[in-house]
This record gives sequence, structure tokens and C-alpha cells, in this order.
Amino acid sequence: MKIEVVRDILDANAQCAAENAALFRRLGLVAVNVMASPGAGKTSLIISTIKALDIPVAVIEGDIASTVDAQAVAAEQVPVVEINTGGACHLDAAMVRQALARLQVQGARFLFIENVGNLVCPVEFPLGEQVRVLVASVPEGDDKPLKYPGIFSAVQAVVLNKTDLLPHVDFDLSRYRSLVRGVNPQVPVFEVSCRTGHGLDVWLHWLRDLAA
Amino acid sequence: MKIEVVRDILDANAQCAAENAALFRRLGLVAVNVMASPGAGKTSLIISTIKALDIPVAVIEGDIASTVDAQAVAAEQVPVVEINTGGACHLDAAMVRQALARLQVQGARFLFIENVGNLVCPVEFPLGEQVRVLVASVPEGDDKPLKYPGIFSAVQAVVLNKTDLLPHVDFDLSRYRSLVRGVNPQVPVFEVSCRTGHGLDVWLHWLRDLAA
Repeated sequence: MKIEVVRDILDANAQCAAENAALFRRLGLVAVNVMASPGAGKTSLIISTIKALDIPVAVIEGDIASTVDAQAVAAEQVPVVEINTGGACHLDAAMVRQALARLQVQGARFLFIENVGNLVCPVEFPLGEQVRVLVASVPEGDDKPLKYPGIFSAVQAVVLNKTDLLPHVDFDLSRYRSLVRGVNPQVPVFEVSCRTGHGLDVWLHWLRDLAA
Repeated sequence: MKIEVVRDILDANAQCAAENAALFRRLGLVAVNVMASPGAGKTSLIISTIKALDIPVAVIEGDIASTVDAQAVAAEQVPVVEINTGGACHLDAAMVRQALARLQVQGARFLFIENVGNLVCPVEFPLGEQVRVLVASVPEGDDKPLKYPGIFSAVQAVVLNKTDLLPHVDFDLSRYRSLVRGVNPQVPVFEVSCRTGHGLDVWLHWLRDLAA
């Protein structure tokens, strides 16, 4: 019975995600599901991207508690809606649909959806997004693709943030790239530092291609 | 019905956790549930503690996939058993009971249980432990107590790791301490660097008191 219930939840989510996907297409939105560990830099990447991208965006901010990220995004003068999950460990498609109803998306081309900081649970809940992006970060260590293969295999891009810390930690970039390829052979890995701006141009180029 | 099932699972876990707690007492084990984000340094803290602590320990290593952490701990010549959750986002009490049956705990005084890297789900599943420790890390940022109040309020100690990175990131220690106190007024915060060894003595002193 437990397994049946879990399947019911996932089926209901998949159906809602398909409806979201159709809605995103109708609205002309490229929806990007941004996933990461706590503190890897999802909000920093979204804000750096908003500042540098010459394409209008809207943002849905998912958090378990607090509105600090949504406030930071709103300061960039883009439409933003907060989803407070009230304890839940992931966003689901129904939450995104509700948030979308409150979001001003007219004119926006990208919709960034910042998921809850968690490398495990969000993977099971598609939101209707066109692409999934994993924000990883250097201080987490170069062994993460071995330990969280589910999320590394489920994304269309890996953004490795905080490369400015490479001189200060033990992190082998070539080992990391090799481990990522081991679980997801085709995925691009963008090395960036949201703090210094290093490498963001390549990431922005990849994003622009999605909207072209 | 969904809520009923969730309650069933949590009730079953609570009962198993109570049995584990009784077993730990009978075996003379102080069980420590070590929780953190991916890459905050759970394994590093356990290994640094094993090296410096003059008290015998045993270890249960929880991971979604891979055995890299268990191998690193085994290299320290302490008894260790791996729990591979096969995708699950947290350990539960039944997993720990099964692992315990395969673990050589004779003579050990501490049992460190490394949970899955996740700041959300493990909080809901007590394992029978005597104390819960959160390993946080400087590069995750000083706002984490605001965003994950559930885990910060559920632990008996916070170990803030990677203090050697303080000169290289934006992290306000006094703000962090104040935010931690906001959700858990009494909890000690140990500032350490497993890389340099800085601050470990105070953490070890606290641990020794638990075993006294």
C-alpha cells in the first residue's frame, strides 16, 4: 500500500508537470529548474544571470522557510514569487502551477525556478521544465558525482560554482569532469565563479541558445 | 489516506528508534547522528575525531550510492559498516538496526552514524541516537539557520567546518551565531577546520564529556 501511494503521488505530479510544460510553451517561456545542495549558489547564479543576460526573465523561488532569496531576486527588478514549502524537501508541479498564477510573466522569455536545496528529493518531481540545471560548488568536493549519481544523470547542465576557491581546497577538476562524464557523458560542465564573474559568459551563451 | 500512511511510517520508525536506543544503552554506546549538507565535511569530521580521540569508536556510514566514505573510515582501522540507501534521502532506524547486526562494536564507546547528505529529510527520522550533530560549513553561507530552521533546532551541537575558508568568502560569524541562537538558543557552535585541525580540541572536549 505504501508503494501504491508513492506511485499515485508521482503519477499526479507527472500529469501536472505535463500541463505546466504545455502552459510554458503557450506563454513562450523557457523554464529552467535550478537544483543544488544548500549554499551551492542557486540564488547567486540566478542573480548573476539576470544582471548579465539581455533577455527578460521571471523567477519562482522555492524555500522551506524564509524569504531572503526572493527578496534578493526582487531587488533586481524582475517578477518573482516565493513558494514556501513549509517543511517539504522539494518543489512539486502543483506548487509551481500555483506560483505561476501569481507571477507577472508577460514579456519574460526565461522562467528560473529555484528548487529547495537538496540533491536527492527534487529529482523525483519534474515541474514541467524544459531543462534542469545542477549548481554544484567547489568546496563540496570532487567526489559528488559518485555519491549523488541520480541528480548528476538527470540534468542538462552542471554549473560548477565557486571556482575562485580552487586554490584553497583539495579539488581535482579533471577527476571531477571524468566522474561527471561517468554518469552523464554528454552534459556540459560550466566552471564559474558568481563572486568574480569568471566563466559566466560561457554559461550565458548556452542559455541564449536555448531561447534562440 | 496519504497522511495516514506517512504517520504509519513515522510511528514505525519511532518504535524502532526506541529499540535501538535501548540497545545502544545496553552495549554502552554513545550514538551520534551526524547530519549535514552534501560536502560539508561529515566524513572529514568523523576521521579527524577518530584520529584525535583517545576513546574507541565504531562507525555506520550512510550513503545513497558508492562506498568512498566507508573506505576512508576503514583506512583508520575502526569497525565500519556501510548503509547504501539505494536512492533514499535519509537513514531510518531499521537501516541502522540492520547495520548494527553486522558491526563489531565490542569495546567501542562511541558510535558515529553518518547520515545521508541532506538538511531536510533526516530530521524526521530519529535513529535511536543519544545526540544529533549538524556539520555546517563556511562556504554554504551564514544564512542557513534562516532557511533550514528544522535541522538547526533539532540538534545538540553545530560544528561549523571549513573555517580556513573564512578569509576567502563572505561569511559573518557573529551574524551566523546570532541566527543559530534564534532557532536554538542553547546549542553550542564549534568553529573548526578539519583541514588544518583548528578548533577540534573544543569539539573533542564536548564529546569526551558525553562519554564520561
